[in-house]
Amino acid sequence: MSKAPGFIRKDDAVVLMLDHQAGLFSLVRDFQPDEFRNNVLALAATAKYFGLPTILATSMDEGPNGPLLPALKEVVPDAPVIRRPGEINAWDNPEFLKALKATGRKQIIVAGIVTDVCVAMPTLSALSEGYEVFVVVDASGTFSPVARDSAHVRMANAGAQLINWFAVACELQRDWRNGMEGLAALFAKHIPDYGNLISSLNRK
Amino acid sequence: MSKAPGFIRKDDAVVLMLDHQAGLFSLVRDFQPDEFRNNVLALAATAKYFGLPTILATSMDEGPNGPLLPALKEVVPDAPVIRRPGEINAWDNPEFLKALKATGRKQIIVAGIVTDVCVAMPTLSALSEGYEVFVVVDASGTFSPVARDSAHVRMANAGAQLINWFAVACELQRDWRNGMEGLAALFAKHIPDYGNLISSLNRK
Amino acid sequence: MSKAPGFIRKDDAVVLMLDHQAGLFSLVRDFQPDEFRNNVLALAATAKYFGLPTILATSMDEGPNGPLLPALKEVVPDAPVIRRPGEINAWDNPEFLKALKATGRKQIIVAGIVTDVCVAMPTLSALSEGYEVFVVVDASGTFSPVARDSAHVRMANAGAQLINWFAVACELQRDWRNGMEGLAALFAKHIPDYGNLISSLNRK
Amino acid sequence: MSKAPGFIRKDDAVVLMLDHQAGLFSLVRDFQPDEFRNNVLALAATAKYFGLPTILATSMDEGPNGPLLPALKEVVPDAPVIRRPGEINAWDNPEFLKALKATGRKQIIVAGIVTDVCVAMPTLSALSEGYEVFVVVDASGTFSPVARDSAHVRMANAGAQLINWFAVACELQRDWRNGMEGLAALFAKHIPDYGNLISSLNRK
Amino acid sequence: MSKAPGFIRKDDAVVLMLDHQAGLFSLVRDFQPDEFRNNVLALAATAKYFGLPTILATSMDEGPNGPLLPALKEVVPDAPVIRRPGEINAWDNPEFLKALKATGRKQIIVAGIVTDVCVAMPTLSALSEGYEVFVVVDASGTFSPVARDSAHVRMANAGAQLINWFAVACELQRDWRNGMEGLAALFAKHIPDYGNLISSLNRK
Amino acid sequence: MSKAPGFIRKDDAVVLMLDHQAGLFSLVRDFQPDEFRNNVLALAATAKYFGLPTILATSMDEGPNGPLLPALKEVVPDAPVIRRPGEINAWDNPEFLKALKATGRKQIIVAGIVTDVCVAMPTLSALSEGYEVFVVVDASGTFSPVARDSAHVRMANAGAQLINWFAVACELQRDWRNGMEGLAALFAKHIPDYGNLISSLNRK
Amino acid sequence: MSKAPGFIRKDDAVVLMLDHQAGLFSLVRDFQPDEFRNNVLALAATAKYFGLPTILATSMDEGPNGPLLPALKEVVPDAPVIRRPGEINAWDNPEFLKALKATGRKQIIVAGIVTDVCVAMPTLSALSEGYEVFVVVDASGTFSPVARDSAHVRMANAGAQLINWFAVACELQRDWRNGMEGLAALFAKHIPDYGNLISSLNRK
Amino acid sequence: MSKAPGFIRKDDAVVLMLDHQAGLFSLVRDFQPDEFRNNVLALAATAKYFGLPTILATSMDEGPNGPLLPALKEVVPDAPVIRRPGEINAWDNPEFLKALKATGRKQIIVAGIVTDVCVAMPTLSALSEGYEVFVVVDASGTFSPVARDSAHVRMANAGAQLINWFAVACELQRDWRNGMEGLAALFAKHIPDYGNLISSLNRK
Repeated sequence: MSKAPGFIRKDDAVVLMLDHQAGLFSLVRDFQPDEFRNNVLALAATAKYFGLPTILATSMDEGPNGPLLPALKEVVPDAPVIRRPGEINAWDNPEFLKALKATGRKQIIVAGIVTDVCVAMPTLSALSEGYEVFVVVDASGTFSPVARDSAHVRMANAGAQLINWFAVACELQRDWRNGMEGLAALFAKHIPDYGNLISSLNRK
Repeated sequence: MSKAPGFIRKDDAVVLMLDHQAGLFSLVRDFQPDEFRNNVLALAATAKYFGLPTILATSMDEGPNGPLLPALKEVVPDAPVIRRPGEINAWDNPEFLKALKATGRKQIIVAGIVTDVCVAMPTLSALSEGYEVFVVVDASGTFSPVARDSAHVRMANAGAQLINWFAVACELQRDWRNGMEGLAALFAKHIPDYGNLISSLNRK
Repeated sequence: MSKAPGFIRKDDAVVLMLDHQAGLFSLVRDFQPDEFRNNVLALAATAKYFGLPTILATSMDEGPNGPLLPALKEVVPDAPVIRRPGEINAWDNPEFLKALKATGRKQIIVAGIVTDVCVAMPTLSALSEGYEVFVVVDASGTFSPVARDSAHVRMANAGAQLINWFAVACELQRDWRNGMEGLAALFAKHIPDYGNLISSLNRK
Repeated sequence: MSKAPGFIRKDDAVVLMLDHQAGLFSLVRDFQPDEFRNNVLALAATAKYFGLPTILATSMDEGPNGPLLPALKEVVPDAPVIRRPGEINAWDNPEFLKALKATGRKQIIVAGIVTDVCVAMPTLSALSEGYEVFVVVDASGTFSPVARDSAHVRMANAGAQLINWFAVACELQRDWRNGMEGLAALFAKHIPDYGNLISSLNRK
Repeated sequence: MSKAPGFIRKDDAVVLMLDHQAGLFSLVRDFQPDEFRNNVLALAATAKYFGLPTILATSMDEGPNGPLLPALKEVVPDAPVIRRPGEINAWDNPEFLKALKATGRKQIIVAGIVTDVCVAMPTLSALSEGYEVFVVVDASGTFSPVARDSAHVRMANAGAQLINWFAVACELQRDWRNGMEGLAALFAKHIPDYGNLISSLNRK
Repeated sequence: MSKAPGFIRKDDAVVLMLDHQAGLFSLVRDFQPDEFRNNVLALAATAKYFGLPTILATSMDEGPNGPLLPALKEVVPDAPVIRRPGEINAWDNPEFLKALKATGRKQIIVAGIVTDVCVAMPTLSALSEGYEVFVVVDASGTFSPVARDSAHVRMANAGAQLINWFAVACELQRDWRNGMEGLAALFAKHIPDYGNLISSLNRK
Repeated sequence: MSKAPGFIRKDDAVVLMLDHQAGLFSLVRDFQPDEFRNNVLALAATAKYFGLPTILATSMDEGPNGPLLPALKEVVPDAPVIRRPGEINAWDNPEFLKALKATGRKQIIVAGIVTDVCVAMPTLSALSEGYEVFVVVDASGTFSPVARDSAHVRMANAGAQLINWFAVACELQRDWRNGMEGLAALFAKHIPDYGNLISSLNRK
Repeated sequence: MSKAPGFIRKDDAVVLMLDHQAGLFSLVRDFQPDEFRNNVLALAATAKYFGLPTILATSMDEGPNGPLLPALKEVVPDAPVIRRPGEINAWDNPEFLKALKATGRKQIIVAGIVTDVCVAMPTLSALSEGYEVFVVVDASGTFSPVARDSAHVRMANAGAQLINWFAVACELQRDWRNGMEGLAALFAKHIPDYGNLISSLNRK
């Protein structure tokens, strides 16, 4: 356990956003709703900004789980949406797996609802096949802090790295001189405190 | 104390949004930042939707308090902004008071940063002059829950009514048959759970 | 304020359960979901047990607010359900008001979703017409503790009494010798700790 | 409301400890159990130390409510225990009322389980008959903070004063020169931090 | 630690529910009572639904620990109940061990009261004998979050996987096309938010 | 209760800081220690800055209560320290009362340890003699939030106004043009977020 | 990490209680004071009941750290008290180490104030010398939950097992038939809920 | 994982304080502001007291991140400040790395804002190059407890040790006889409770 894990590599990472569906959001009780919606959209905006391949998925979206969050689709309109007819673990869906493998990437950045199922199952599957997995904890939600923490432990002990969306963005950026305007705008939009710092700075 | 206070009357209410400035937001520690920014913008959107006269104000906005939140100004672009050169209590500023009195309205809906000063002082002043005051508790922020609760007690005991932005909107609407689309869109934007209910309903 | 308010009188009380609708439940963030559903059903069971006239209501139940909670209807199958076509304040609905006044009762026990609107508005209306109002705080839910507490202050300062469903039941019962089995069973079902006490006692 | 209420008077106060029964303790969820038991015993020890007349009561102590907390009885062995056969409001029990009135005292210090029923009902009854009532909030417990807070508002708005056991003791003592050893020992036993201060002071 | 642990396999898993006894429930302070009882019954209903062999156990159920929760027994009426005469670690009880080994299964799904003893001890014993162990964190309760978290760390570091009852159900189901009605009904009953989604969907 | 209470008047206010003693600080459990010490010193610095007469007091400071907080004395070195030999209520100490009355002021700003005794008793005494009392809630500490809230209710219902130290400072200042440098420095020192705003502004 | 750690063995365990000193208790902010004192005394009572060798220690007990908690010494009057003249890590004190090694035991059960220093340092030292270490998390206290959790991670990752005092007692007992009365009395005294269960059971 | 990690060695440790900038402080929401500023300054004072080489760094300090906290620079005026023009990971900045390597030290004590980026990235980089890393959790801040905890898990699982500033100081001191006055003064300044213990001890 003394070997530091690698950082996210911009050319080897793919983003999976699983089951951020209108109905399932009502199950999420480990985040305040404004905060959680913001985190989900921020992760998508990050994927978009850095041009990472991004795959969306839904589970039985004609039933109670509800349709994909429209605002999420608007952020990444070109991302494919895999509509699973029944598989709970996205990894069990051949179309999903094919789309993922077509990217040729080995680092998975994943978020979803609910953390302990829709995130945990593909995470464990991916790890067992040799992928590096980064679980975006603040864009993943579930029933309670207890359920969340236990899923975190399970995934981390299996080799996943826990991370938040802001750290994802920063690891992809690496250096502010790689282009500042776009990322600063993204941060200003999704981090109120950061937007306020920019407003104060720019007032004159 | 057995007489029920009146509801907000659409033709007698004016909205005061005091000192929602970029710097002052960093002092607000009794709300999660996404939630608080959302509440502030939702109150402004409510004022706009119902066509209530709205007055914005800032306190020394060239100093550390910072400029008015740009996103707030964008929601109510026609609202006057009273830039106070020093008065802590907006009521002490003649220009502000003139703008308020010019509306001819006797019900004040007020929010601001910080609750215990920029909201509490004008609230107490207005009450002493016979206004009805509705303090919008979730669009007002301050240093801690203890400071907030104490300001609430002080204002309520002086006769103010404590209310949240959603209740303001509902009291102004009174009946959904008065026009549904616009308000539903406003709620969908500012209440994630409500937006999700609408998305699920409309999928077919 | 030195005169003690009266207790709930079994022959003068009516129960109003407002807008406990499937969609609106997803807005409730000031209670854990199991706890809240239990409290709502417990209040209905209490009304049923003591034979209090009970009126249910919904607001636009074909829209996002959703249908009345089926389990609630099952507890009080004979209670009328007033389906409001648009009025946010149930008091503004003539059919509702007529049903209420037909009971001839002057003590209102009220709960609903959300506390700050669907409960607060009829509470203020009823108080202004001279009713005694008991707001059942744990069978009423809303967006946040801040919104809840402010609505409580507003209603209490207008003269309402804040109470929980267990206290409603106890005030109606007054004396355990008035019939123990039924109420004990009701408590055992809706208060796990109480049920456990009974199980331990009865084991032999 | 501008007249300051009187302090507790040593020669006019009586202590009522209602339904601190082994079974009912398991319903108390608004305090950590060690803290709550300590508070209950501390209030009894205070009553004993200052020689206040003290009345204990139980409600159906052969049923699930369970027997009186033995440790409480040990602290005030001479206090009468009124075993109510069914009355939920102790005030409805003639024997209890007789014992209370026999003391001739007009200031009631009351605590019990649960706050919203066993404390609230006699408090409201006593206030309506002109007694001064001091509700000991930290020796009274109930199902949740929401239930507690609502009961506090109800009682306070009816004229009761909310107080904690330590403040009861200090108001009875008034001046440390009235005898220090006994009270210091009581505080050392029931307030760990205070005991530690004394231990540190006395080490040499 | 880079090898992903296996999922629960329907034909290799057995469910152990240890010491969910009426008296012991009163010790559980890391969950709200309605939530906890619901979680316990939901786990049992899941075991029942998927036809997993299930073993119940009690510890000295004639003493203060109290009888087995009757509602639990009702959910899985055919499950054997091992009444331990004294062994704190169920693994030390020959009858229990025999019943377990008779199932021939190597994946243990375990929950109980209290987490740090009645769950932790058999978990450690089972791990040392080569079983896979899944600890159901939300159907296991104890004195405090600190005690719970420490027991979680201890068990996870020994190789156990932490999981919640909903994830157990989903891992057993794997695909919604394996039969939807029964599981949806189970979720509707034990997850209020999920029940509400279904009610809204089905209203027409 | 519809008359707004007056603001703090700079020429009619006196500050009482009661029993901020080294030993008593260890009893304060309703604030994080750094935050609480900072609030206490900030209130003293405010009194000093505006030149308000200030009276310090201790209770039996040779015993476990400990000596006056040295840092507090350093902020207001000229303030008299009344060392009470036994009176728990500072109002009962003739020397203290004489010092207070010598100021000729009728508005009392008070803070102390513990809120429910050392603050509450003089507050009630002062109110009964016609003083206006402003209780500084964040420079007063006690055993628990429950004890604090109850003392707040008791004092507020007797006519006291609850306020925090920052609002005290702002009401005394009224207008930033009355002198900015000193107060800004005071805020920068005692409000980290405000200091940071100033640092950012002044960097160029 | 798949090998289950051993349980505590009655004949191979020694209890170390480090720096439970009157002054240091005031630093403990991650537990409510009544709860924490109770946990400390309960651990000592457990050591006593099972006859485990027990070593107490203090650090500079003539200075601000203060004397050993007298109530702790009373529970285990025969335990040696090693008064360290300066060593922060008890393991650095030859007398302490000698006393420990004289017991010949290889399983260390340790608690102290503060968790991150007085417990963590000897824990790490003992682990590096091949001892098994059980850290009693609820009889160890420190400045904040963050400090505590970090120390737990550090110790657990070095090989320590985290445990609470109740689990220590149960692992030592193993079977209730090894003698019930004494342990039941110990639990009744230190676990209010357990005491209440016994009282209810024994009432007849 | 059974080998105890080494303690901090005074002659092999270097302190890195990263991006404690006025603007970035406003992003920190996992600590109360007074507490956090105090922790940051306390760590710097500890570095200073023990004469550890200390390196400060900023990231784009002319932009919204703001200038280095002036009070921090005052504590360690001789520490170099590496002003990074763009690199998010300080380890990517050659000047920073050169300064670090020039110390020749292999134990890194690191804190910064935000924990999940400015601390986590250099921590992972340093671990991968064979350094021992001690992450000072209470002098590092970020957006939320969830973000913090995940970063802690990520760093700890990569081999970092989590520690708080007080434990850093104690491990450096090892024995109070190595010089008591200076460290006691440092603790008195930065730990209010400890300062109070000293004040009480020294009063005579």
